[in-house]
Amino acid sequence: MNLTGAISKRSLDHMTRGSLIRAMFERGRLLKEQVGAANVHDYSLGNPFNEPPPALVQAAQRMWADPRPGMHRYMSNVGFDDVREQIAASLNARHGLTHPLNKNHVIMSCGAAGALNVVLKGVLDPGDEVLVPRPYFVEYDFYVDNHNGVINPVETDANFLPDLNKLEAAIGPRTRVILIDSPNNPTGVIYPESFLRSLDELITRAEEKFGHYIYLLSDEPYAGLAYDGVTVPSVLKNVRHSIVGTSHSKDLGLAGERIGYIAFSPRIDDVQQLFNACALHTRTLGFINAPAVMQRVVAEFQGEVAGLADYEARRNLLYQELRGMGYQLVKPAGAFYMFPESPIPDDGIFISEALKRNLLAVPGYAFAGPGYFRLSFAERTLEDIARSLPVFRELATQYGLRGWV
Amino acid sequence: MNLTGAISKRSLDHMTRGSLIRAMFERGRLLKEQVGAANVHDYSLGNPFNEPPPALVQAAQRMWADPRPGMHRYMSNVGFDDVREQIAASLNARHGLTHPLNKNHVIMSCGAAGALNVVLKGVLDPGDEVLVPRPYFVEYDFYVDNHNGVINPVETDANFLPDLNKLEAAIGPRTRVILIDSPNNPTGVIYPESFLRSLDELITRAEEKFGHYIYLLSDEPYAGLAYDGVTVPSVLKNVRHSIVGTSHSKDLGLAGERIGYIAFSPRIDDVQQLFNACALHTRTLGFINAPAVMQRVVAEFQGEVAGLADYEARRNLLYQELRGMGYQLVKPAGAFYMFPESPIPDDGIFISEALKRNLLAVPGYAFAGPGYFRLSFAERTLEDIARSLPVFRELATQYGLRGWV
Repeated sequence: MNLTGAISKRSLDHMTRGSLIRAMFERGRLLKEQVGAANVHDYSLGNPFNEPPPALVQAAQRMWADPRPGMHRYMSNVGFDDVREQIAASLNARHGLTHPLNKNHVIMSCGAAGALNVVLKGVLDPGDEVLVPRPYFVEYDFYVDNHNGVINPVETDANFLPDLNKLEAAIGPRTRVILIDSPNNPTGVIYPESFLRSLDELITRAEEKFGHYIYLLSDEPYAGLAYDGVTVPSVLKNVRHSIVGTSHSKDLGLAGERIGYIAFSPRIDDVQQLFNACALHTRTLGFINAPAVMQRVVAEFQGEVAGLADYEARRNLLYQELRGMGYQLVKPAGAFYMFPESPIPDDGIFISEALKRNLLAVPGYAFAGPGYFRLSFAERTLEDIARSLPVFRELATQYGLRGWV
Repeated sequence: MNLTGAISKRSLDHMTRGSLIRAMFERGRLLKEQVGAANVHDYSLGNPFNEPPPALVQAAQRMWADPRPGMHRYMSNVGFDDVREQIAASLNARHGLTHPLNKNHVIMSCGAAGALNVVLKGVLDPGDEVLVPRPYFVEYDFYVDNHNGVINPVETDANFLPDLNKLEAAIGPRTRVILIDSPNNPTGVIYPESFLRSLDELITRAEEKFGHYIYLLSDEPYAGLAYDGVTVPSVLKNVRHSIVGTSHSKDLGLAGERIGYIAFSPRIDDVQQLFNACALHTRTLGFINAPAVMQRVVAEFQGEVAGLADYEARRNLLYQELRGMGYQLVKPAGAFYMFPESPIPDDGIFISEALKRNLLAVPGYAFAGPGYFRLSFAERTLEDIARSLPVFRELATQYGLRGWV
């Protein structure tokens, strides 16, 4: 007989929501089969290209070459004590934290996605709200829904900085989390220190108004990828009730190994209760603990970034050329994305036109930012970018952009 | 001001539910501090003692020593194609599957806990039911609640086999999953092939009655740990609508590395929809993918088991001695647990008495099996066991058990 319910209705809903982007990736895949991958200008994927630092690879090799009994066993769900102590010390030193973290403020995680899910599970009850500046990484919708929360996008200004008045107005009695991502996916914007300080004041006012904690949850996988010598301002330094979720996918080129951490501001009065809840959820959501060997491997490489100069050269070339052609865009200060305005209001149509010329990009509506499109230069070498420029130029001409070249 | 809501109410509920066991572990930890770990007979922890096979360690070392570009990057959320193909081929060969699996029936997971969460998310809508034979691994409560399901324990017989009539009677219109664990934690029981066949018929009848899929979800981290030369009967072979979630934590001694897989029966008509849902949830629950290097490492060691003879010798010694003292227990056929009857009805009191003699075990009520207690010999050497026997004997005498020694 024909049975129903092979998957849950909720799964079906999630799959439908993800289907537009999947269809686009599928078109890209087919295109590569048709014309050859080398002939496709693929700016759609955010897969970091950089390899881990050679010293890190050697450290991992040494660890496997000289096995210690018990090194692959379960440890505490929050990770190894010494690793967490090293990460706390590195954060304290790099950001000059006057309220220093110790190992009881760090939980090792399976990357940033694992970290965010654990924290959201720890703080959201059904119907609780998460505010997110728009445009935002589309997966946040799923992370929040996983834990029965509700996502509430907040407008940003022309520079993709959240409008503080609108943000404050959006905070209601069910708001538990403000979720940010700096350097930002998809815009590449870095939130300045002054903005974080204002955010701290805003959160304090809202907490006094509503009587409960409101956390700034900072998704920081791109924190190491900041250009022009900039250091990304620290939320732990500037925001009392902040929580960082991050990974070493991008800075250390370890995306496939699923290693990152959660760091809690010591200025959260109930930080140990929050830590304990997140320790429990690390276990019960099925992570159990971050991969053992990778914990020890990354501990020694805190603050290092592999491949930064390459990414910066790519950003410089692509930004300069697109500006010259007349594309309107904010210069990305970090990450490996840029988010230009679509030359026509319907970014879906623009992306289809680009696809006809073998150029793949993601429409802004996929990030709740219609009227824009996202370019990822994560996998594009300078040569790749140079080869793609005529296509960008053709599109600029087609839509009457006025450049200076 | 004092703020409320540092964690969600749901987190608080989960922490409270977990607190009895945590309190017990905490007492154990304090005891070890007081009298020295060597003087505590700790049968409470399920941390596998076995190291990975030396050839596996060498394979991992070679992989790091000869790095290939891209080996640490993101791959498909379901894992590497070649790894999944190898696992499918190994399952087909080891179990003689006449409905063979291929790579489209295997998703690499972050251990069994990750696998179960992904599958439950894929098939449960809020209020849907999961039937579990009692006693059961206490974490199942959390896994099911994570995805808003309801757990419904079903009685087992004197040999800890589910009563098929009671199981069938318990299936209702909201039942989506029957969750089993064989070899079982906490009982060590292996479900025989005839039982699985009956279960298949029972599920088919229930599916015809209710019109929707009902899956047998088999949690199999102990599948490699079967004693007396037994092979654990395959659910994929015997149950049409079966899904396996497993890990290499126990068979390959890799608990800390979080590597396992989900295997779907090819006889599920809508298996590709189910596969796609679980692929999406692997990503959106925050796992993204199973750790990259570990995927390739375990692919070559499918079906191998490290340390089996050691575990079996421990089981033999402990079982024989406890039986001789008059403890009532089912001989564990696999895993590294046994689940004797408490000599007195209140297993909590018995465990407290044992603790006074520096013997740690887990009361049965922690597994929804009051009146019993769980002993884990995962970390107990033959010498450890021998040293603990006088304590078991004292307790037997205290409660008037009649042994033959």
